Amino acid sequence: MHSCFELQNILHTEIPLTRQIGIQVEHCENDRIVLTAPIEPNTNHKCTAFGGSLYSVAVLTGWSMLHHHMQQQQLDGHIVIQHSEVDYKLPVDGKIIAECVMDTPEILDKFLKTYKRKGRARINLQVNIVFENTIAMTLKGQYVVHQ
Amino acid sequence: MHSCFELQNILHTEIPLTRQIGIQVEHCENDRIVLTAPIEPNTNHKCTAFGGSLYSVAVLTGWSMLHHHMQQQQLDGHIVIQHSEVDYKLPVDGKIIAECVMDTPEILDKFLKTYKRKGRARINLQVNIVFENTIAMTLKGQYVVHQ
Repeated sequence: MHSCFELQNILHTEIPLTRQIGIQVEHCENDRIVLTAPIEPNTNHKCTAFGGSLYSVAVLTGWSMLHHHMQQQQLDGHIVIQHSEVDYKLPVDGKIIAECVMDTPEILDKFLKTYKRKGRARINLQVNIVFENTIAMTLKGQYVVHQ
Repeated sequence: MHSCFELQNILHTEIPLTRQIGIQVEHCENDRIVLTAPIEPNTNHKCTAFGGSLYSVAVLTGWSMLHHHMQQQQLDGHIVIQHSEVDYKLPVDGKIIAECVMDTPEILDKFLKTYKRKGRARINLQVNIVFENTIAMTLKGQYVVHQ
């Protein structure tokens, strides 16, 4: 929980729009990061979640997974999104819940080792927005970390 | 200019986060829509524009192109983003400028005709974020309009 609080503070301090979106860090574990946001500040013309808000929460969930692991290994670096592919499958008309599950720790390990060796590394992460137990949006993001 | 003002009002009313992002409609013509936002509310941990803000401005620029043409033809309908691919090429450390140019009016005409006939149509649009005369980000969006 301490780690959740720290991560949320970092997001709210470094990316002020996350406060307007209302991003909360709900889970922050090695194998699973969950970021959420209330629907109210993020509605669109159809009173469902605005696609840009869904994207913002999702892209930061992947960012948070990398930030969390880098912090655990006391690594500094800039984490940036380089490429993303997004599929909107269903409208979200309630709380925005974005989940990134690390089910390939060997790929993460390789990524961290490459970063330590070269000062630059790249990794693909998938983030799902889940609404009523169904995947409402997927983001496949290619992130780059550099010194 | 009147059309710009109306479009900006629609964005600010229907998608409240656009006010926090500071979205302005700078050009609203049949063949070119330009939306902008100041950098200040949209910074990230590197003091450049947050990827989620760039995405939000870009996705709404494509949305606005379709909204503008549908309004001109007095068509009602819901415009939603279904799929997108995003490439971040360069950081943006100033005003966010997103441009959608309609250089294939025949594809737009076909899209509008399909929508009139079937009540549903799909179109691909590209939006560029331009910074210091260079493309800093591209968004290729597949939009769907339905009744």
